[in-house]
Amino acid sequence: MEIFAYMEGEKAVRENVSLEDLPKLLADEKVIIWVDLDIRNAEDLQQAEDIYTNVFNFHHLTIEDCREARNQPKVEEFPEYLFFIVHGIKTQTNTSNFVTKELDGYLGTNFVVTNRNEEFRSIDGVKRQIRLSPRTFQRGAAYLLHQIFDRLVDMYMPIVDDFDGAINEIEDRVYEMKTGDNAILEEIMDVRRSVARLKRISTRQLDVLYRISHGEFPQIPENILPFYRDVHDHLLRIYDMEESYRDLVSGLFEIHFSVTANKTNEVMKTLAIFSAIPLPLSVITGVYGMNFENMPLLHTQNGFFITFGFMFIIFGGLIVYFWRRGWFG
Amino acid sequence: MEIFAYMEGEKAVRENVSLEDLPKLLADEKVIIWVDLDIRNAEDLQQAEDIYTNVFNFHHLTIEDCREARNQPKVEEFPEYLFFIVHGIKTQTNTSNFVTKELDGYLGTNFVVTNRNEEFRSIDGVKRQIRLSPRTFQRGAAYLLHQIFDRLVDMYMPIVDDFDGAINEIEDRVYEMKTGDNAILEEIMDVRRSVARLKRISTRQLDVLYRISHGEFPQIPENILPFYRDVHDHLLRIYDMEESYRDLVSGLFEIHFSVTANKTNEVMKTLAIFSAIPLPLSVITGVYGMNFENMPLLHTQNGFFITFGFMFIIFGGLIVYFWRRGWFG
Amino acid sequence: MEIFAYMEGEKAVRENVSLEDLPKLLADEKVIIWVDLDIRNAEDLQQAEDIYTNVFNFHHLTIEDCREARNQPKVEEFPEYLFFIVHGIKTQTNTSNFVTKELDGYLGTNFVVTNRNEEFRSIDGVKRQIRLSPRTFQRGAAYLLHQIFDRLVDMYMPIVDDFDGAINEIEDRVYEMKTGDNAILEEIMDVRRSVARLKRISTRQLDVLYRISHGEFPQIPENILPFYRDVHDHLLRIYDMEESYRDLVSGLFEIHFSVTANKTNEVMKTLAIFSAIPLPLSVITGVYGMNFENMPLLHTQNGFFITFGFMFIIFGGLIVYFWRRGWFG
Amino acid sequence: MEIFAYMEGEKAVRENVSLEDLPKLLADEKVIIWVDLDIRNAEDLQQAEDIYTNVFNFHHLTIEDCREARNQPKVEEFPEYLFFIVHGIKTQTNTSNFVTKELDGYLGTNFVVTNRNEEFRSIDGVKRQIRLSPRTFQRGAAYLLHQIFDRLVDMYMPIVDDFDGAINEIEDRVYEMKTGDNAILEEIMDVRRSVARLKRISTRQLDVLYRISHGEFPQIPENILPFYRDVHDHLLRIYDMEESYRDLVSGLFEIHFSVTANKTNEVMKTLAIFSAIPLPLSVITGVYGMNFENMPLLHTQNGFFITFGFMFIIFGGLIVYFWRRGWFG
Amino acid sequence: MEIFAYMEGEKAVRENVSLEDLPKLLADEKVIIWVDLDIRNAEDLQQAEDIYTNVFNFHHLTIEDCREARNQPKVEEFPEYLFFIVHGIKTQTNTSNFVTKELDGYLGTNFVVTNRNEEFRSIDGVKRQIRLSPRTFQRGAAYLLHQIFDRLVDMYMPIVDDFDGAINEIEDRVYEMKTGDNAILEEIMDVRRSVARLKRISTRQLDVLYRISHGEFPQIPENILPFYRDVHDHLLRIYDMEESYRDLVSGLFEIHFSVTANKTNEVMKTLAIFSAIPLPLSVITGVYGMNFENMPLLHTQNGFFITFGFMFIIFGGLIVYFWRRGWFG
Repeated sequence: MEIFAYMEGEKAVRENVSLEDLPKLLADEKVIIWVDLDIRNAEDLQQAEDIYTNVFNFHHLTIEDCREARNQPKVEEFPEYLFFIVHGIKTQTNTSNFVTKELDGYLGTNFVVTNRNEEFRSIDGVKRQIRLSPRTFQRGAAYLLHQIFDRLVDMYMPIVDDFDGAINEIEDRVYEMKTGDNAILEEIMDVRRSVARLKRISTRQLDVLYRISHGEFPQIPENILPFYRDVHDHLLRIYDMEESYRDLVSGLFEIHFSVTANKTNEVMKTLAIFSAIPLPLSVITGVYGMNFENMPLLHTQNGFFITFGFMFIIFGGLIVYFWRRGWFG
Repeated sequence: MEIFAYMEGEKAVRENVSLEDLPKLLADEKVIIWVDLDIRNAEDLQQAEDIYTNVFNFHHLTIEDCREARNQPKVEEFPEYLFFIVHGIKTQTNTSNFVTKELDGYLGTNFVVTNRNEEFRSIDGVKRQIRLSPRTFQRGAAYLLHQIFDRLVDMYMPIVDDFDGAINEIEDRVYEMKTGDNAILEEIMDVRRSVARLKRISTRQLDVLYRISHGEFPQIPENILPFYRDVHDHLLRIYDMEESYRDLVSGLFEIHFSVTANKTNEVMKTLAIFSAIPLPLSVITGVYGMNFENMPLLHTQNGFFITFGFMFIIFGGLIVYFWRRGWFG
Repeated sequence: MEIFAYMEGEKAVRENVSLEDLPKLLADEKVIIWVDLDIRNAEDLQQAEDIYTNVFNFHHLTIEDCREARNQPKVEEFPEYLFFIVHGIKTQTNTSNFVTKELDGYLGTNFVVTNRNEEFRSIDGVKRQIRLSPRTFQRGAAYLLHQIFDRLVDMYMPIVDDFDGAINEIEDRVYEMKTGDNAILEEIMDVRRSVARLKRISTRQLDVLYRISHGEFPQIPENILPFYRDVHDHLLRIYDMEESYRDLVSGLFEIHFSVTANKTNEVMKTLAIFSAIPLPLSVITGVYGMNFENMPLLHTQNGFFITFGFMFIIFGGLIVYFWRRGWFG
Repeated sequence: MEIFAYMEGEKAVRENVSLEDLPKLLADEKVIIWVDLDIRNAEDLQQAEDIYTNVFNFHHLTIEDCREARNQPKVEEFPEYLFFIVHGIKTQTNTSNFVTKELDGYLGTNFVVTNRNEEFRSIDGVKRQIRLSPRTFQRGAAYLLHQIFDRLVDMYMPIVDDFDGAINEIEDRVYEMKTGDNAILEEIMDVRRSVARLKRISTRQLDVLYRISHGEFPQIPENILPFYRDVHDHLLRIYDMEESYRDLVSGLFEIHFSVTANKTNEVMKTLAIFSAIPLPLSVITGVYGMNFENMPLLHTQNGFFITFGFMFIIFGGLIVYFWRRGWFG
Repeated sequence: MEIFAYMEGEKAVRENVSLEDLPKLLADEKVIIWVDLDIRNAEDLQQAEDIYTNVFNFHHLTIEDCREARNQPKVEEFPEYLFFIVHGIKTQTNTSNFVTKELDGYLGTNFVVTNRNEEFRSIDGVKRQIRLSPRTFQRGAAYLLHQIFDRLVDMYMPIVDDFDGAINEIEDRVYEMKTGDNAILEEIMDVRRSVARLKRISTRQLDVLYRISHGEFPQIPENILPFYRDVHDHLLRIYDMEESYRDLVSGLFEIHFSVTANKTNEVMKTLAIFSAIPLPLSVITGVYGMNFENMPLLHTQNGFFITFGFMFIIFGGLIVYFWRRGWFG
């Protein structure tokens, strides 16, 4: 648990504010407070819930949501504060395994509370920044929260842009695959799954930011709204790309399928050529392999050569026939 | 039929209230009443309809809806009460057979009526809870109903989360299937059917909870709305996942199809190799099997070995040819 | 043409009211009138249009709509009356040939006019009912019309529920089909066509009932609205099921396709086994069928048995090979 | 260019009004004017634009739209008039080549201007009608325009209804095709293209008529709105059918594909039977064709018959085997 | 950086206005100013940001957006100005590689600022025009901006119309392809990707123009709105076509697939004919190639001819059989 506080006019943000001072500071409207709770064990949880209940007096449903980890992004208004759930992406996320982590929190007129179970690079970044300058705090709690959201959404960008490359790369490998390959199918399905997950999160997250950035909540002052609209626009871009990706991923299946069909077609042609040419020739050799005595040409001097020449003509004719039909390559 | 009643200030909830006392209690605004009707036979039905008509004076269309069992979730406002239909999931439900059961009911300012033909674990749970403490009743009828809805929707969660695993597991089996298999297709189709059913129910149920939780009905006091919004958010998550699942299930068909195509391609290659190598060799043996007397090499000492060597070269050449085309594995 | 009239306070509905009395009755607000026109020939049509124009003074566009038979469901408000078009289902309708018939009509404050070219079981039912008791008329024209709509929509239910069974049954037959079968494809396409038609009608019909049941039209008194909402809810269920069915029908194609692919795969395997085993053996027999004199083993005592043993080993080896690849079964 | 004018109270519509009289007539509110401009060459265009600019004083953007020919249907309100673009269908349109032509125009309180580059049967029809009776003009400019729209939309109906037949007919031919056929695929793709074009036009056209018929524009008097709603309803039917068609056309692809797969399956079976039966027999004949001296049965009296009998048993066994698997037909 | 200014009443637009004069001119409401910033290096960027910050005092979020190059089209209102991002298409864009470039900018009551990193033909065009006549400036800043948008959107038209041809051309090549061809698949996928990108851009751009052209922003005077609506309508056409294209592109996959399936079917038939005819004949020749002494016909005079005749009958019979099944072409 880290508590930051900034009082109007001060030169720096106070760090490591003690829990005892919190109620007094909260009551002072000239102080902006950020309580960041990184909950890793039962003790942390107990402490967090104590603060929520006794210091902030938050609605217990929101406290329950903080405790759970399977929520969708949402924002809920209460008379004194907003409660929000947003999702950041995990560090190890990639295009074939898109995973997110939950950031819950509260925004009051003069405080921000962030609640999480995992490392958030966006939060670390904001902390570094406020240690350098109190500017972020000077613009108020809503602006401080915007800084966190902004960085959190920016983390999505490289991953989402990677999808384009990943789809391209799979596409190329599909064209080049020598043999039908389940591994590629698994990869396509993984990307599909990631895109579906991305869609699920970004749709709701977009909704949250739309509501926040369009003046629905009095906790966000008018002059801060453009900052949230900016975050909203970044998410909108992610959302739009995700729609394209879904289309392209389903194109990958079709391409994989068509390439396999092409390959099968090629194998069939090879088979056809290798069957269609020897089999008629075998009939001819078979005829002269019969043990009849009285067969035309059998006892002539050039019988074999005539027969062989005939076989050769058939052979050449079939080669030409298949060539014309474009079966050689 | 079980009737619970709680009078403001009392220490416990009264159980097994008799039908005769019901009208008097209903008239007292300080009493919160819950009538739970579990209708299993014609007699139960008769009794229930008597109560609805004579004690509560419910609209007869709603009584008809209670009698039927093929309704979609809905909520309808009447001057004195809300009528609702929601669906819980059956105990035996699983991902390949998603089935729901209907819970009908009424919410008035000081009463809740629940009407059903089946066991509901959510209702049993609420009963256990009110036997422990009257807290649920103290917050009023709307809160009591919320408790039922909350538990009912929570029952969906494990089933809905299971879909993810089920789809994954089918996917793995598709990759590993040795032979094209209708059983897997049947399973995929069953999951598809379940997802379709889940969608049908959850769309309407979401609609019901949206309307209830957004202040449309005066029966739900302002301070209870967040509790219903919480249920709504849980349903929203189910709804969002269902959309992903639909996408993934249709991916299963495509994967099954592609894997089958890969298999066919493999079989074709095996066939092609086993045909393309022996058939030309057979032509050669056929040639020397012809009964002509005058054939080159035929009567030489090493004729056989030369021919055999030639056959071996062709054999080796074809092996190399197919190897290069990547047909061996 | 049948005309029913009911005057407030009377004990029974008057049947076979004469055309001459109609204007006088219409002018009396205490009388509820139902004019049912079953138009089968040009004469009926002439009479109907006379009544519409001269007695009721309906807008001529609505009269044109009554004359035509290719309309979508709709409802249009005029100052004195509502004009509606709804669709009932034909008696011979089934899941592979879903056909509807048009019921046009008017609703005024004290009259209902129904116009049709076909038998409607729903209308016959209402007639039977009003002969038993005037209760339906006592609640006013809007309630009378609701009775017709309610029965008309209820006729959809068994057909719509049948789709589920039909799709299931086709699915089973697809799994069991021994040979690729156009007849099943035709059936699937017929069901698809039916579902498309059902969608087309039910979407518009739902719209009509939504507008009627949500208080948009003053012709429907407040206390009658719940009855229309009930019809609307039934239609909503039909609409929801239709969406599921569309999904399942398109699943049928995929299953048919996959089953065919499985079958082809099986045939290929059989072909491969029956080719791959004899062909190499034929090469061996071909070798010893060559007419060279100087061949190893040829003139030995056990040459044949050694060769035959070798062939048998190859035979066994191939059997094992294909067995391991899972091609037997 | 044809100009029609009708003055209140006159018995017939004046035809061939001269351009010089136009401004004076326009200024008279008791005169209804229709200017129909059929622009075929640069001269017509020049004249039309002169009239638009100098007589009517239309916004020059609308004049530009009139000049161009690649517009979507739209309607735009200006203080003095409405500008509209609608699409009629070309005479040579059919289900595999759905093409439309543009009709631009203006509607003022007492005038209609129609601008086009092609023959319109709907306009010719209205002209014939107004030569018979001035009734159309008597109801005002908005009613006159409705007449044109009504006929123009009615022209769609037979074409749109034809799609159903065309799709059916292609479906039948797909079932009956003996050999995979690109011509049918081209046809399906043409119909798909037509349906896409129909959708593109009808969606916007529907929008135009929705806005016109729902009282958005003061140029359309209240009592004329039902007439436009009627046109809107006709278009709605077209729109609804187009949606069905899209579904069915994509079904055609699936059917074509499945039928081809069935055919391939059949060919495979034939191939398998014709390979699987002779090949094992050939091995037997090959064995006794080997030139070993010491072979069982070889020198016995009935060796051949025993061997032949054995071959016959294998032959019969295979026939039965394939028969049981349902490969014969 | 180019600055244009026009003072009411002047005969020409002033070019190359110096940066120093800018603040004074901006303060004069009778002057219309256009600042066009073509930013190619860090120095340009520095200068641009100085102007934005010091001269115009723009919100720094918009300045950030100008700096970045991965934005979606948007429009944002600030008290003194509008900020917009629109996309033009790059010169090298074609149907298989649809790429856009960003144009950012601001619109105030008397100024337009355009910010870009690339050549824009639309901007060059507007510059040429204003050098000819100050008319564009005379109508105000909003009209000037409209001119840029109008030309920018018009650039889309030929590219978007090309898609139709490109899809047609690919379709034709698919029908004519001799051998399954990954190159065509790559092309189809490229077009699909282009259509997806076109959709992504045009959806948001349409939204921007819808908001601008429907009177939402006070910066656009009433009389200029029709001009923006015109641009909106052009974009709407692009949007509508894109939807059709998506449908057709996915049709291309299906056609490619069906054509490949047809080809495979053909190859199979050829294979079947070339296998099914020789193999039975080989059995017969094999029989008489067996070295039994006691075989029927073997030692007769016409044995060979009878056998050969029998083979010929089988040959003919099979030819007829396959002919009847339509396997010859």
